[in-house]
Amino acid sequence: MGRWEPNAHERLSLAALELFTERGYDSTTVAEIAERAGLTKRTFFRHFADKREVLFGGQNTLSRLIAEKITGADESASPLEAIGVALEAVDVIFSPERRQWAQQRQAVIAGNSELRERELLKSTTIAAAMAAALRERGVGDLVADLAAEVGNLAFRTSFERWLEPANEQGFAELVRQTIKELRAAAIHI
Amino acid sequence: MGRWEPNAHERLSLAALELFTERGYDSTTVAEIAERAGLTKRTFFRHFADKREVLFGGQNTLSRLIAEKITGADESASPLEAIGVALEAVDVIFSPERRQWAQQRQAVIAGNSELRERELLKSTTIAAAMAAALRERGVGDLVADLAAEVGNLAFRTSFERWLEPANEQGFAELVRQTIKELRAAAIHI
Repeated sequence: MGRWEPNAHERLSLAALELFTERGYDSTTVAEIAERAGLTKRTFFRHFADKREVLFGGQNTLSRLIAEKITGADESASPLEAIGVALEAVDVIFSPERRQWAQQRQAVIAGNSELRERELLKSTTIAAAMAAALRERGVGDLVADLAAEVGNLAFRTSFERWLEPANEQGFAELVRQTIKELRAAAIHI
Repeated sequence: MGRWEPNAHERLSLAALELFTERGYDSTTVAEIAERAGLTKRTFFRHFADKREVLFGGQNTLSRLIAEKITGADESASPLEAIGVALEAVDVIFSPERRQWAQQRQAVIAGNSELRERELLKSTTIAAAMAAALRERGVGDLVADLAAEVGNLAFRTSFERWLEPANEQGFAELVRQTIKELRAAAIHI
């Protein structure tokens, strides 16, 4: 085999998650992940800075995609509508094939306090990216902050619903439904 | 002097913040903080688990106070009204005498990425405490989550405004004003 391993990124992701699930996150080494994937540690480090990045590496892609779609949303869209358009586009990442991996990932994170903190920080990063993108659209500070918090809650809620074992809906559909419910809930706060 | 040092907690807090400001957070040791306060390391550790707790030790008191006041708010209060009552009560902690210390603390946190992360996590803890207290009042899940996110934004915004050098308003007054502005902003999202 040459230096370029086909699907190395995906093989390493799957191997890591298997091991995190079997042995726990803290007890798994990069060497073991590489071995399980049939690859070398060197290849692992070409794809990830460390084992935590296997779980959180998608974060920047996600924030960037959401920000781009907010900026590019139709001029007539309200702040929360622009966020809705952006979150529906995340459907590309949260595809049906990805769901099982995401469920396993969530179980690993739930079992480790450091990873739970990381996941919370990721959530605040996404809210900040949403607010910044709205300001770029000319939305005022407080309205941008408020829409970003509501949009971030829509994202988290849709994501949790998407992961539920009984769920059969796609991510975009869940986003539309959640935003509708949040608009209705807003009357009661 | 006996083992019980008068105002030890406050003297240590002030000494720590002075040193963090002068030398940076990472370069300051517990021994130096104790020395500056004219106390021993032993006394320091009777009041704080570590130097980070000087900056974040008030967090649990704050979350508990907010949760208690939400639970105890008048039955007729809407979720955000209950949060408003609770945040106005925080005025006891964010008193005018406390403001300079809080400003210095904020400057120290702004200069250190680990402390910034800790501050963000504190913010999510407060939002979670608000949501849990609202559920105890019988508020439904999504309405509780939404009100907690809006309430947390109200808290953060009021706090930032309170710290601004030109500000002359008290914390409770800023809370009332911010919540009013957020209700008006909600129409535009």
